[in-house]
Amino acid sequence: MKPDHLESLRVDGRRLLDALSALARIGATPAGGVSRPAYSDPDVDARHRVRELMRDAGLEVRVDAGGNTFGRLPGAADLPPIIIGSHTDTVPDGGRFDGALGVLAAIEVARTLRDRGTSLRHPMEVVDFQNEEGGLIGSKIVSGRFTDDALSFVAVSGHTIGNGIRRLGGDPAQLASAVRRPGSVAAYVELHIEQGMMIERAGAKIGVVEGLVGIRYWDVTFDGVASHAGTTAMTDRRDALLAAARFVDAVNTVVTSTPGRHVGTVGKLTVFPGGANVIPGRVVLTLELRDQSEQTMDELFGRIEREATRVASGTGTRVTMIPTLRNVPSPTDPRVRDAITQAAQTIGLKTHAMVSGAGHDAQNMAAIGPSGMVFVPSVNGISHSPAECTEDEDVVNGANVLLGAVLHLDTRL
Amino acid sequence: MKPDHLESLRVDGRRLLDALSALARIGATPAGGVSRPAYSDPDVDARHRVRELMRDAGLEVRVDAGGNTFGRLPGAADLPPIIIGSHTDTVPDGGRFDGALGVLAAIEVARTLRDRGTSLRHPMEVVDFQNEEGGLIGSKIVSGRFTDDALSFVAVSGHTIGNGIRRLGGDPAQLASAVRRPGSVAAYVELHIEQGMMIERAGAKIGVVEGLVGIRYWDVTFDGVASHAGTTAMTDRRDALLAAARFVDAVNTVVTSTPGRHVGTVGKLTVFPGGANVIPGRVVLTLELRDQSEQTMDELFGRIEREATRVASGTGTRVTMIPTLRNVPSPTDPRVRDAITQAAQTIGLKTHAMVSGAGHDAQNMAAIGPSGMVFVPSVNGISHSPAECTEDEDVVNGANVLLGAVLHLDTRL
Repeated sequence: MKPDHLESLRVDGRRLLDALSALARIGATPAGGVSRPAYSDPDVDARHRVRELMRDAGLEVRVDAGGNTFGRLPGAADLPPIIIGSHTDTVPDGGRFDGALGVLAAIEVARTLRDRGTSLRHPMEVVDFQNEEGGLIGSKIVSGRFTDDALSFVAVSGHTIGNGIRRLGGDPAQLASAVRRPGSVAAYVELHIEQGMMIERAGAKIGVVEGLVGIRYWDVTFDGVASHAGTTAMTDRRDALLAAARFVDAVNTVVTSTPGRHVGTVGKLTVFPGGANVIPGRVVLTLELRDQSEQTMDELFGRIEREATRVASGTGTRVTMIPTLRNVPSPTDPRVRDAITQAAQTIGLKTHAMVSGAGHDAQNMAAIGPSGMVFVPSVNGISHSPAECTEDEDVVNGANVLLGAVLHLDTRL
Repeated sequence: MKPDHLESLRVDGRRLLDALSALARIGATPAGGVSRPAYSDPDVDARHRVRELMRDAGLEVRVDAGGNTFGRLPGAADLPPIIIGSHTDTVPDGGRFDGALGVLAAIEVARTLRDRGTSLRHPMEVVDFQNEEGGLIGSKIVSGRFTDDALSFVAVSGHTIGNGIRRLGGDPAQLASAVRRPGSVAAYVELHIEQGMMIERAGAKIGVVEGLVGIRYWDVTFDGVASHAGTTAMTDRRDALLAAARFVDAVNTVVTSTPGRHVGTVGKLTVFPGGANVIPGRVVLTLELRDQSEQTMDELFGRIEREATRVASGTGTRVTMIPTLRNVPSPTDPRVRDAITQAAQTIGLKTHAMVSGAGHDAQNMAAIGPSGMVFVPSVNGISHSPAECTEDEDVVNGANVLLGAVLHLDTRL
């Protein structure tokens, strides 16, 4: 069936909105949010529910060795699959849309296709990746980027990743069987909430993601000397918090004085010993940089490192900076971007090409096939919060664009 | 008996050092320190031991309604008492000398006088004030500066002050009976470790305290907006930690750019929500200022307040500064200083006139009678730590100067 015959095909918006509401009851919090940290009981329950919905939509369901849930719709030709989906785990006390929207919209797309008796050339798979919030673990496994030493890491829920995979029905001893080789996926398309305000500011309804930023983390420690705040003269102090304060300001100066859309954040900072009348002897903080360009991040970090050395020498403290995470920037595929843009235009929705400042499973999937993302607006840009919200209209728009993009890709790839 | 007949009188140094070692076993920590937070079991036990030592020294022992222990040596004349002493409570994981030295040296002075059959004109009282480390509580009660609303405050040990007073044998309903009126004390002399390095740097052996600094505390809160570190552009941020960092640096600049011996410290700082990938929405920190002059502290705080407003407006945050404590500066009495200086000179010990940057019970006692303090050196200035140390020789010197000062004051007041 040609896509022009399907241009009028639309998802059942009410059914999708109801599915979102129903899933939000699993792990619901008193504040109106959702807590389904990876491997927790609510996470396990939600994935059971997802598999039921997949079966109702006529999909063949399986859990891979990595604990990811897949639901498959066979294709007419012997081709690699188009994969659509996202994740259903959340941050603690998070929102109803981050992740869940992409999974439930993908199931709704499959159901719409089946209801209309529409069959694609490519098989289509709906995926619910495990532990996205804890480091894109599920898609790391599928893309071959996961290393077994991380199986012993403890997730927010208190379970190790290894034990968590077992709780979700996977088998950590067989992870190799979950890896898909480059070229084995026709395309990956993920619908997600924006978590920012750029679509709205551009006067658009759909964000077409051009690329996902790279993310680097460091643990930064300043060591001074803890001493009595009353008896230690200002000139005798080696105050680790004074050093850390100057560092935080320097990070901001370096990041904002360099033109570009990169960001730099110190989000966590702990003072030791932390008494009101004790000069801080040690401060531990996190530094995070995000940008589309590896070179820009290298340059920013080089300047920040020089500032840290300058600050330490000016305060009589010692500084150490240990890299703890490095996700490389990941452009999306132009064919997937085009399919999304055309699908939106068909429905009459204005698009906005943009960079995702957040990390998503799409950046791992980009390593094995053409990948892209559809963003829909977040009210006030709020996310990872019970106040996270996307308007019903935008939810349905997003699902229809996902459907349209799949149909476009099915004919063109 | 005239003081010149007593110029050769000396304490039994070995007995004092042994008493210090024995007391340090109560609440001893594996790290070699002492943990006797006010009202804890070790604190209660140590005060029992102090009362035994007082009785052995021939003192009449009583616990006042405020939970302070007094041991009295009658005087030959009907005069108000000379009080000497300090406290035996410690900070958690503190040292063996802070407080304990002043109490045990005072008991040793009493014992020395009794052993020699020396009687003073004035009665002499040895005091072990309760909860010095938690805000000079015992001496606040004695000087009439305690207000009953603080009875419900919870001390580090987990006991309220009211319950703690009962645990030490006092009666919180009868605090008025523990108050001493101005003029009812001939003099108060406290021997204490310096907790700094000024005596050593002056090439002296005995510190003669000219005054105790005033101390003011504030709780400072910066409120911004917590948001996603990846999706919030630098220009859209209202980062509470960036504001707090600039504030910490500004406090240091204000304090160090004003000539004087005042100090300003931010010792405690907490970031909310405190995730590596979340822009801080709130930071709560403590500001502490210490100086001998109320006017200097007023001026410093005025400048700091203006800097806080400037920082908040530059970062799109809101700042609130709430005063939480105010101890007024307290000069010592020239007659007590002279007595200490002469006692030291008699033994051939070089003295150094100095300001105490730490708070002590002497500052409350100054409200009801002539007060002063004898400081002995702290090795490397370390205090509130298991590494706190004062050399044996300095311990004995301090006790002998305390004895000599009492004898001088007894004839001159």
